[in-house]
Amino acid sequence: MLSGSHPPQAYGGDGQVSITAADVAARIDGQLLGDPSVLVRGVAPLDRAGPDDLSFFTHGRYGKWFATSRAGLVLVSQELAETEGVPSTRVIVARPMDAMLSLLALFRHVEPRAAGLHPTAVIAAGAVLGDGVTVDAHAVIEDGVVIGAGSWIGANTSVGAHSTLGHDVRLFPGAVVYPRTELGDRVVLHAGAQVGRDGFGFVPLQGRIERMPHVGRCVLEHDVEVGANSCIDRGSVDDTIIGAGTKLDSLVHIAHNVRVGRGCFFAAHVGIAGSTRIGDGVQFGGQSGCGGHVTIGAGATIAARGGVIGDVPAGETWSGFPARPHKEQMRILAAMARLGRMLRPLERLLARQDKS
Amino acid sequence: MLSGSHPPQAYGGDGQVSITAADVAARIDGQLLGDPSVLVRGVAPLDRAGPDDLSFFTHGRYGKWFATSRAGLVLVSQELAETEGVPSTRVIVARPMDAMLSLLALFRHVEPRAAGLHPTAVIAAGAVLGDGVTVDAHAVIEDGVVIGAGSWIGANTSVGAHSTLGHDVRLFPGAVVYPRTELGDRVVLHAGAQVGRDGFGFVPLQGRIERMPHVGRCVLEHDVEVGANSCIDRGSVDDTIIGAGTKLDSLVHIAHNVRVGRGCFFAAHVGIAGSTRIGDGVQFGGQSGCGGHVTIGAGATIAARGGVIGDVPAGETWSGFPARPHKEQMRILAAMARLGRMLRPLERLLARQDKS
Amino acid sequence: MLSGSHPPQAYGGDGQVSITAADVAARIDGQLLGDPSVLVRGVAPLDRAGPDDLSFFTHGRYGKWFATSRAGLVLVSQELAETEGVPSTRVIVARPMDAMLSLLALFRHVEPRAAGLHPTAVIAAGAVLGDGVTVDAHAVIEDGVVIGAGSWIGANTSVGAHSTLGHDVRLFPGAVVYPRTELGDRVVLHAGAQVGRDGFGFVPLQGRIERMPHVGRCVLEHDVEVGANSCIDRGSVDDTIIGAGTKLDSLVHIAHNVRVGRGCFFAAHVGIAGSTRIGDGVQFGGQSGCGGHVTIGAGATIAARGGVIGDVPAGETWSGFPARPHKEQMRILAAMARLGRMLRPLERLLARQDKS
Repeated sequence: MLSGSHPPQAYGGDGQVSITAADVAARIDGQLLGDPSVLVRGVAPLDRAGPDDLSFFTHGRYGKWFATSRAGLVLVSQELAETEGVPSTRVIVARPMDAMLSLLALFRHVEPRAAGLHPTAVIAAGAVLGDGVTVDAHAVIEDGVVIGAGSWIGANTSVGAHSTLGHDVRLFPGAVVYPRTELGDRVVLHAGAQVGRDGFGFVPLQGRIERMPHVGRCVLEHDVEVGANSCIDRGSVDDTIIGAGTKLDSLVHIAHNVRVGRGCFFAAHVGIAGSTRIGDGVQFGGQSGCGGHVTIGAGATIAARGGVIGDVPAGETWSGFPARPHKEQMRILAAMARLGRMLRPLERLLARQDKS
Repeated sequence: MLSGSHPPQAYGGDGQVSITAADVAARIDGQLLGDPSVLVRGVAPLDRAGPDDLSFFTHGRYGKWFATSRAGLVLVSQELAETEGVPSTRVIVARPMDAMLSLLALFRHVEPRAAGLHPTAVIAAGAVLGDGVTVDAHAVIEDGVVIGAGSWIGANTSVGAHSTLGHDVRLFPGAVVYPRTELGDRVVLHAGAQVGRDGFGFVPLQGRIERMPHVGRCVLEHDVEVGANSCIDRGSVDDTIIGAGTKLDSLVHIAHNVRVGRGCFFAAHVGIAGSTRIGDGVQFGGQSGCGGHVTIGAGATIAARGGVIGDVPAGETWSGFPARPHKEQMRILAAMARLGRMLRPLERLLARQDKS
Repeated sequence: MLSGSHPPQAYGGDGQVSITAADVAARIDGQLLGDPSVLVRGVAPLDRAGPDDLSFFTHGRYGKWFATSRAGLVLVSQELAETEGVPSTRVIVARPMDAMLSLLALFRHVEPRAAGLHPTAVIAAGAVLGDGVTVDAHAVIEDGVVIGAGSWIGANTSVGAHSTLGHDVRLFPGAVVYPRTELGDRVVLHAGAQVGRDGFGFVPLQGRIERMPHVGRCVLEHDVEVGANSCIDRGSVDDTIIGAGTKLDSLVHIAHNVRVGRGCFFAAHVGIAGSTRIGDGVQFGGQSGCGGHVTIGAGATIAARGGVIGDVPAGETWSGFPARPHKEQMRILAAMARLGRMLRPLERLLARQDKS
């Protein structure tokens, strides 16, 4: 029932969805209680929902909100279906949150997208743009750039000379692509993301500190997403590569020559130092980091705040700083707590020994 | 004497203030020593001040700077009033630093603000702008945007479709407001701040990793200030809300569905993970962070570098990682130091036990 | 042989270099094995290099890559010169990596730079631009700005009123210079860097929280480089000064009134709180930080993740949080590990004492 074949008339005018309770129940294979003609147009949590909103009631602890909620329609689990509360129109479904996730796309506003190239955009004569590319106001696209079909280049962005962007790429406002950067298909750069900058490399030369000329590439493979204000450097003599499907949250930094595998996740504020290799499916928690020239095996997880300074085997979860296997880290913390409680007895014991 | 009713002729031409020593003394209720006609036009610390500058001498340890300072006028405390030094024109006041703070607004250059809409700004026909709104060069304001009276939209900014901005909002250059974001009155977004982005949520769908469609709002209430390059995500099914009067420093990240109370302070590099609830008046020190789905009570303080992984009661100060009550953290550190000093005696004791 | 006097015909058309193996050997004083007429046009690591690429083989552990590399020319050390492998044209040199560094500038693409002022740039009538200044599309330069000869102001940047930029300054796209900021010669601001913002200072005034008016300067001396999306605040009553030759990586924050010496290095995500003084040649590792009002002596090193809360003497290396001398930190970690191993024997000992 979640197929794309659902009749488009489910959507009202102006991009605003409007769905009946009966339709919601049908789409998620749920059991409807109450009025099947109730219309919902948006989604909101119980405490904020109004008569036009679809909401969800997933746990008894939210009962006080359910009791007084003004929501027009609520997804509930079997065991909560009979809970007392204002909302009388309910859809019973095994997993209300999963069901809600499957419905969200219906309610998401599709932002208006202009066709073609805004007259204020500055596009070099030598740039090659595929079919259906949108370039918004004040974007700057330099010479030799190639942009694949269907891409959408947001306002106030810059795409440096000789960069190549795949098809259906999305640059949000203010994103910057340095020259000669390579973005695969469906890559997303959020607002203020900066990719392809020369990395932080300096060499002493004749008594001066000179920038190390960077000649390596910065490559973001298909389906990579880069969060707001995140930064990815190009390689110095090697390449910086972000593997297909990898997602970065906001304010992440990836240094030069780092190679990241496919399907990795980097939470906000993660920093990866130069020349580190990261396997497929690795996950970094918020504010974690990794030193330079280390290797992190496929499927490893670095917990939030973890600081990696050496190699991490595939599949393991590491935490702390310096990071070590999470179980070992937990054992150490527990041992330290027990030692802390033994402090006074041990002091007494040593005092007695001194006397004797 | 600090009222706004002070005669405007205190200001010289070109936005540059010029005040006599007598005037300074009168404004802060201080006692003038030396020449009442000395004119000052700026503020500087003792070591950099010149004859046109007002300076301040707040502590004996700065005596060496005072001795040779070229400052035209110096605020001093009673006990330092007779210190030997070049500056002969002095104003004695109980708290020189507080007095200085109260004078600063006089010396601050008011940056020139153009009236109206710059011809290079791209403003959708459907946008509604209040009286006295300034839109600087190359700003982009999309369809359905509403901007309250007196707001100032800086250069190279983007305001996404259907966002609403209150009155006297200030967007500094390069700030980005994603579509459908709501900013209250007097909200300030510093340069490069990004608000209203879809958060870092992904769901597996038919063997692919798909973005979770975000339908929640991003709401910044009145008087919120967001620092340079800070990022605030919109909600997924809930809202992200930053309470009135809350201030964020630079490079802060607030994830989706987070609700922040009123009057909170976030220092630089703070990261808050998704769905966390933060009460009124909470303060986060620099580089601290907070995991997802936790609750921090009103008036709590998280020390610099603190990493919160569970609920924090109202009014408490927590520190460390994992964060715990600061006093407890201090006790543990002290206990560990004492244990460290006991290491050798304990080793000797155990060795003796083994022998016996 | 690395002098700038080398004949320019070494470069091919279109900014693309093309050099013979013989030329490479001569430039680095190396010994050529194989065909002197082999042409290389780029640089790549062994595993990615093609017949047109110069590569380097620096350690036996890369032997498997060397064995099958398609590189046209490889720099090798004396002891690896005879290693079996596909690449037959080799240059033997004492330090292949240093030799490579010296060659990189030849291979780096010089990005095209337009002459003069782009017609879409908005430049105030009162701004003064030196000879040979380039201003790219959609840059905004406000009144009273002075820009030295040879500077290059990138696309979508903003330079606030009355700022002064030295000669040969480079602003990358999206950089923002707040009003009255002072940049020395050859200063580089990478994409999205923000300098000169009023710092994070608030004062309670008549029951409201008011911004502290900032009247201090933000000064970046000659040859300072600021990474992508990094932020430097102006001073409140003092100045914020970044000393000559200091380099900041991406996502760094320097708060108000901080004075940084010459030749310092700040890795990514470093945060320095207000009014701290940092001597010459200080290095901060990634994700390290420093509290406010402390002094760090010249030549000190703060390790990655180090969190400084008190003064650090000149020349010392500190680590950990709270940071202390690195050797002491190591001793403490070692002592804790030994104590951890003693946990059970000590528990048994105490149990026996209780019984006796």
